[in-house]
Amino acid sequence: MSKHSTETTYLEFVKKQNHYNQALALLAWDARTGAPKKGAGQRSEVIGTLSSELFALSTSNEIEALLTELETTSDSLSDITVKSVKESRKEFDRNTKIPAAEYKEYVTLQSQTETLWEEAKDKADFEMFRPNLEKLIDFKKRFIGYYGEDTSHPYNTLLDDYEPGVFVDTIDEVFQDLRKNLVPLVQAVTEADHQPKMDSLFTHFPKQNQQALSLDILKEIGFDFQAGRMDETVHPFAIGINPNDVRVTTKYNENDFRVSLFGTIHEGGHALYEQNISPDLMGTPLCSGTSMGIHESQSLFWEKFVGQNYSFWQRNYPLLKKHASGQFDHLSLDEFYFAVNQAKPSLIRIEADELTYCLHIILRYELEKALIDGSLPVKDLPHVWNEKMNEYLGVKPSHDGEGVLQDVHWSFGAFGYFPSYALGYIYAAQLKDAYTKSNPSFDTLIEKGDFAPIRSWLTENVHQFGRSKKPSDILQDTTGSGIDAKPLIHYLKNKYTTLYKL
Amino acid sequence: MSKHSTETTYLEFVKKQNHYNQALALLAWDARTGAPKKGAGQRSEVIGTLSSELFALSTSNEIEALLTELETTSDSLSDITVKSVKESRKEFDRNTKIPAAEYKEYVTLQSQTETLWEEAKDKADFEMFRPNLEKLIDFKKRFIGYYGEDTSHPYNTLLDDYEPGVFVDTIDEVFQDLRKNLVPLVQAVTEADHQPKMDSLFTHFPKQNQQALSLDILKEIGFDFQAGRMDETVHPFAIGINPNDVRVTTKYNENDFRVSLFGTIHEGGHALYEQNISPDLMGTPLCSGTSMGIHESQSLFWEKFVGQNYSFWQRNYPLLKKHASGQFDHLSLDEFYFAVNQAKPSLIRIEADELTYCLHIILRYELEKALIDGSLPVKDLPHVWNEKMNEYLGVKPSHDGEGVLQDVHWSFGAFGYFPSYALGYIYAAQLKDAYTKSNPSFDTLIEKGDFAPIRSWLTENVHQFGRSKKPSDILQDTTGSGIDAKPLIHYLKNKYTTLYKL
Repeated sequence: MSKHSTETTYLEFVKKQNHYNQALALLAWDARTGAPKKGAGQRSEVIGTLSSELFALSTSNEIEALLTELETTSDSLSDITVKSVKESRKEFDRNTKIPAAEYKEYVTLQSQTETLWEEAKDKADFEMFRPNLEKLIDFKKRFIGYYGEDTSHPYNTLLDDYEPGVFVDTIDEVFQDLRKNLVPLVQAVTEADHQPKMDSLFTHFPKQNQQALSLDILKEIGFDFQAGRMDETVHPFAIGINPNDVRVTTKYNENDFRVSLFGTIHEGGHALYEQNISPDLMGTPLCSGTSMGIHESQSLFWEKFVGQNYSFWQRNYPLLKKHASGQFDHLSLDEFYFAVNQAKPSLIRIEADELTYCLHIILRYELEKALIDGSLPVKDLPHVWNEKMNEYLGVKPSHDGEGVLQDVHWSFGAFGYFPSYALGYIYAAQLKDAYTKSNPSFDTLIEKGDFAPIRSWLTENVHQFGRSKKPSDILQDTTGSGIDAKPLIHYLKNKYTTLYKL
Repeated sequence: MSKHSTETTYLEFVKKQNHYNQALALLAWDARTGAPKKGAGQRSEVIGTLSSELFALSTSNEIEALLTELETTSDSLSDITVKSVKESRKEFDRNTKIPAAEYKEYVTLQSQTETLWEEAKDKADFEMFRPNLEKLIDFKKRFIGYYGEDTSHPYNTLLDDYEPGVFVDTIDEVFQDLRKNLVPLVQAVTEADHQPKMDSLFTHFPKQNQQALSLDILKEIGFDFQAGRMDETVHPFAIGINPNDVRVTTKYNENDFRVSLFGTIHEGGHALYEQNISPDLMGTPLCSGTSMGIHESQSLFWEKFVGQNYSFWQRNYPLLKKHASGQFDHLSLDEFYFAVNQAKPSLIRIEADELTYCLHIILRYELEKALIDGSLPVKDLPHVWNEKMNEYLGVKPSHDGEGVLQDVHWSFGAFGYFPSYALGYIYAAQLKDAYTKSNPSFDTLIEKGDFAPIRSWLTENVHQFGRSKKPSDILQDTTGSGIDAKPLIHYLKNKYTTLYKL
């Protein structure tokens, strides 16, 4: 087989894998939007069959032989192939290093635990959940041993699944910086005399009108409806089937329009990333976001730095009013802006505002790191959770259902995922700073609704590369620095000191 | 390998094939409902990859070995396995008898010709289309030679794809019977003094209201929305992903509500069939409709014998009026009923009414049979088409775009498909006769909106069997006779003689 034909064979192979992934993405989208209830069982079987096939491809002798050959001849290969081969190798290793029987046991435990978690959460019964959580953590520790990729901290191996190239020592440093600055700021905001009037936000806003507003806003920020669609769901998400087919979902609360509006902008940010990956990467393992953190930076950039920006509402408050049929007639722009930027410590992460959100994440990061390195026994988890909530946010859960049991992540073994949410905030603030350094007219553009320059800059610096560029390289090339919490701290201090007249 | 385990292995194998088919069905549904335009290219590639995989499975050494072993041991197998093996064998033979290179050439020609057809139709230029049509027919003739399944008429082999067990001699007989009776009836209707008032049907009927009406009617006839959904599309269809997930589509013409209303009932009839296939057949090759003709009989049973029934409108005219906001206030029930049952010869098959429709089909059947047995050269096709249109329906196309070029079917080689449309009418009338023999209260049930007994009867006699019972056996067991055009002729004569006061 000549070098050229091996490369071609490999690219055909990964294209086939990509096609399976696209079919699975459509099945996932369908299951979470309008698919009929009774079809759930069959749908799982179909997903199971295609996933098995994909797993078999990723661990096949064929791909192993192709990778081995291409790794020795990488000088003569295209840059895309070289980077794709690295992704395929990583996947091959991940999928072959764990003994098959053990992995199967783990998958069964995952699915049992997710079901168990729902019940335990409803009953606020941590003890019911504990034995399974312990088993999952034991599995994770063994898996880390099999991977054997990092020796400085076992948690680094888990991070690599979500935020490749970012390690515990860096996160420890930036999260500490962030926490030390946020805790007193949150406290000051909580105690401030000047507080927003919230009532007017919650009068009835019909779903159809909210939908029309969401569509208008998505269009305005540049979501391409020829390459995507928007649907309703229970737990909103965005999914890139491929860059030409990116789907946003949203949910509507007729008594709180913020859920759909800011949710749509958030998912729209993810979608802009997926829609603007370079077409050259189509069909390769590089055709997706480069990390969870960078993906989250894109959704947060649009949701927080654009959608919760004063200029955005200078422009769009009239549009909102138009769709809201009278609801906001007695609320001034300034009052409205203050209200949608309310910051208030709360127990539930997914309801948290931009000021308090990262503290929820830092708490989880500290806990799961300690669970993985063994310094925190699972039985102590609820107690430590509650203490930290009190220390960081000044609130204490009345039961574990609104405390340690609130998130689904651990129940399916997703350790190492949480940090990427806070990294997303940090990255977004760094990117926004980098943008405004060369383009000080950021707010003016937003006020004019001229989002094309901002979008183009993000595409040029982030989107186009897909997975072909590591998170740290994107940050370094765009901002000239590594991960740094200062821009986020600066932004939050500035914004909330002004808003709350501190 | 023991007999038991071979059977299990085989059932696992066909279940895997079924899962691929389900994924492909979802992709097809998605492509024809809301999928974004720009995704078309990637979507085709994904469909191509999964289809190739499915083709490879159906022609694999593994399935061949399983079939060969099971065919020799069928005594000890379940009835479902025995019948499934026959389906798999048929598929294996179909997919292996044509040399691969030749089949590939054919597939390329198909897709080129479909594109060419669109242009030729727009330009009303048959000569542009002719060379490709000739090539397609040559391919078909060679394929018939490869299959070598029938010697009495080459067209029988094509029929076997759509209506297994039904042959040219039977169709010749029933179509002739039908034609001889319909032609004078159509002529009488055309010349009748008493004609329906049509204008009121065409005033503006908002899409949303039509949608609400369609949903109400679908629900009433017993479509299970927990196991299905309804969406908008350009060319309506129903698709059974599996019996628990059956999707109906419809289109809206705000100036002609009949398109969505009767279209929805039609697709609803297909959907009831798919939803009520026995769960025992799930995951086997038997889990779909048994033939195109029987499928069409179910859609037509509901559309024509229920939806265009006077009793149906005794019940539902008020509901229609409710949704129509005033449009029909000045039209009596009898006037309305006459109008929605207007019969009028026209040039275009898909716009034809129930009286004239079968003549469009008979014409196509006669022509394609003659094309396949060589008695009609392709170059003479437009001329013969026009003559027959005049003879059967008393109308003559002014150009080939509204004549011989109007249908897409031949452009992708679908010869043998057309007869099933008329067979569907014939079967539906036979089934309705059989039902009313044991349940004379048919019209009363409809007037009461009590569709459960009718639906149950169809499920018991038709739906539940899926492909495990041949069309002719369904007919024989249910009606006590073979294919017979008399019930349809009787129904049409009776109905239109009364309506048009002949």
